[in-house]
Amino acid sequence: MSHSFSTLDELRALLADQPAMDEGSYAEAAAHNGQLTKPPGALGRLEDLALWYRGWRGGDRTEIAHPQVIVFAGNHGVAARGVSAFPAEVTAQMVLNFQHGGAAINQLARMNGARMDVVALDLERPTEDFTQAPAMSEQDFLTALQAGWDAVDGAADLLVVGEMGIANTTSAAALACALLGGDAADWTGRGTGVDDAGLKLKSEVVAEGVALHGGKGDGLETLRRLGGRELAAMAGAMVRARSLRIPVILDGFICSSAALALAHTHEGALDHAVAGHLSAEDAHRPLLKALGKEPLLQLGLRLGEGSGAALAIAVMKGAMACHAGMATFAQAGVSDA
Amino acid sequence: MSHSFSTLDELRALLADQPAMDEGSYAEAAAHNGQLTKPPGALGRLEDLALWYRGWRGGDRTEIAHPQVIVFAGNHGVAARGVSAFPAEVTAQMVLNFQHGGAAINQLARMNGARMDVVALDLERPTEDFTQAPAMSEQDFLTALQAGWDAVDGAADLLVVGEMGIANTTSAAALACALLGGDAADWTGRGTGVDDAGLKLKSEVVAEGVALHGGKGDGLETLRRLGGRELAAMAGAMVRARSLRIPVILDGFICSSAALALAHTHEGALDHAVAGHLSAEDAHRPLLKALGKEPLLQLGLRLGEGSGAALAIAVMKGAMACHAGMATFAQAGVSDA
Repeated sequence: MSHSFSTLDELRALLADQPAMDEGSYAEAAAHNGQLTKPPGALGRLEDLALWYRGWRGGDRTEIAHPQVIVFAGNHGVAARGVSAFPAEVTAQMVLNFQHGGAAINQLARMNGARMDVVALDLERPTEDFTQAPAMSEQDFLTALQAGWDAVDGAADLLVVGEMGIANTTSAAALACALLGGDAADWTGRGTGVDDAGLKLKSEVVAEGVALHGGKGDGLETLRRLGGRELAAMAGAMVRARSLRIPVILDGFICSSAALALAHTHEGALDHAVAGHLSAEDAHRPLLKALGKEPLLQLGLRLGEGSGAALAIAVMKGAMACHAGMATFAQAGVSDA
Repeated sequence: MSHSFSTLDELRALLADQPAMDEGSYAEAAAHNGQLTKPPGALGRLEDLALWYRGWRGGDRTEIAHPQVIVFAGNHGVAARGVSAFPAEVTAQMVLNFQHGGAAINQLARMNGARMDVVALDLERPTEDFTQAPAMSEQDFLTALQAGWDAVDGAADLLVVGEMGIANTTSAAALACALLGGDAADWTGRGTGVDDAGLKLKSEVVAEGVALHGGKGDGLETLRRLGGRELAAMAGAMVRARSLRIPVILDGFICSSAALALAHTHEGALDHAVAGHLSAEDAHRPLLKALGKEPLLQLGLRLGEGSGAALAIAVMKGAMACHAGMATFAQAGVSDA
C-alpha cells in the first residue's frame, strides 16, 4: 500500500481507520504461553511482550528476523538561539557518521541484526525558529511525514525510529509542554549537556514557543508548529508501521514527543508501540506516563539516534525466542505444578 | 590452570589471592570512551559497563564473542518438607529439557550466541534436609564447588551461571537470612509460586535452618550447611571465572545468594560480577543491595536457569559493541561540544 498525503486531514482520517490488535492471535499466544515449561508468569514482562507482539503482528507470526532502524535527521531554526551544547553543523556531520557506520546506533543495530536506514531531511534548510513562526509550513510538514511513511520497509517485523537534530530536545520539550501543560522548566532538560545558563535560556525559549503556539490545534498541528522535520518523519513512520502491523519500539524523549503528537490526535494511535527505555532526560518519565508506557530498559542513556530502542530490540527478540522456541510441558515430559 | 580443592581452606586462600582489576586497561578504556562520537556520558550505564568489562578482562580485549552459560542442577532434601509448588522430579525433567534445547535459557543463550552447558549434580542423591543436618558434608561440598570450577570454559569471555533445583529458593532464603540477619519471613518469597499456606511453611522451614546453622562459620561454611550442590557449583564457577579474568553476570535470587556466600568469605570476591537483573522475588532487592550491585534489567523475571542474566548478555554486548565499534570525533570529523 503506497500512499501520498496532500492534506493533514487525510492523515487524521487514516489515524481513525488503522488496524486493531488481532484478538485471535493474542488469545492463541496466551494459550500457548500457558503451556510452556516454566511456572506461570515466571518470565515476567517477556510474556506480556510476546502476547502484545503476536496480537499486533497478527496471524501466527512469531519471528523477529527483520528489525529495521531508521534514523531521521533535521535541522532546527531554534538552534540559532544557542539552546544546544553542540553547533548546528553536527547534525550533518553525524549523518555522515551514520552512513559510514561509526555511530552508537550503527553498532546497536548491527548487534541485533537490524537493517539501518538514514534519512536526512533538507538539512541545508532548517525549520523556522518556533519562537517567531510555526516551525514548518503545512507543505513542509506533509513532506517530512511522507518521508517517514516511505522509509518503512514493508518486510520489517519490528521498527525503531531514531533521530539526530541539534536543538531537537528544545522542540520536544515545547511539544510536550504544549500538549500536556505545566511549566516549560518542567519539560526542559540538559539534552546533550548544556550548562546552567544554557538550561535557563532553553527553558525560556520553550516557554516562548508554547506561548506562541500552544492550544492552536491538535497533536499534529502542534507538531507542525513546534516540532521539526525529523520528529514529523518519525510520526509518519509510526503511522505507516501501524498500517503494516509492524510493532514499534519507542526511543527516548524526542521520539516519545513525536509519538505523543499522534496519541493526542487519535487515542490509541500508539497502541502498537512499546517504550524501549527511560532516558536520563528527566522529562521523559512524565512523557511516558502520559503515553501510558512502561520502559523496557533504564540504563541512563540520553543519546537519541534510536539507541535505547535499538538495544531493546534484544529484549523483544528474547521474548519471542522464548515464546516460539520453548517446549511445552507435554512435549518435554515435565510435570506441571 | 587446573586446580583441585582438597580442603575449604585452600579455597579461602585462593579467594584472597585472585586477580584484581587491570587499572591500565580501565584507564585506557576511559580515555578511548571520551573520544567517541557522542556527548559525554550519553550512553549512560553502557559506558560504565564497557570500562568495567575492559578493566576486569584486562589487556586490550574488547570483544564479547564467546559468552558461556552454565546451568547447574541439584536436588534438595528440604524439598520433602513441601516448600515448592512443583514436585522434586521436575529437577531431572528440566535437565532433560535443557539438554534437548526446550527451556527458556536455551532460547536466550542461543539468541546471544552463547555456548550452553548443563551440569547435573548427583540428582539421585539430594542434599540433607537442612532443618536436620548440614545440607552437605565437606567432601560433597568440595565436589560440587569443583564441578563448578571445572565447568568454566577457559576460552569464554563472559560467564552466566544459572540453576535448577526444586526447593532452592528455600536454600537461598536461608543462606541470605543467616548471612545478613533479619527475619526468615523477610527473605522468603513465593519462588515458583507457592500459595499463602506454602509461603508460611516455607518461612518456618527457613527459620528452622537458620536457627540450626546460622553463625556457625563464614560464607562458605554457611553455604555448605544451608545451600545445595548447584549453589556450591555456581560459587565454584564464579571463583574460576575470576581466576581467568572472565567477567560474570549474576542471575536472580539463588545465584545472588551463592555470590553472597563468596562475598562474605572474602570482601571484593564478586567485583568481577555485575547483576544481570532484578528478580520478581522480593528479597532479591535487599540481597543485591548487600552485594552492592545495581541490576541491569528489571523485567519481573523469576525463573532462574540463568535466564535474566542470559538476556543481560545483550546489554553487555551492546556496551562493548559501542565501545569497540564507534568512531572517534577525529575519525568521523564531528565537531566536539
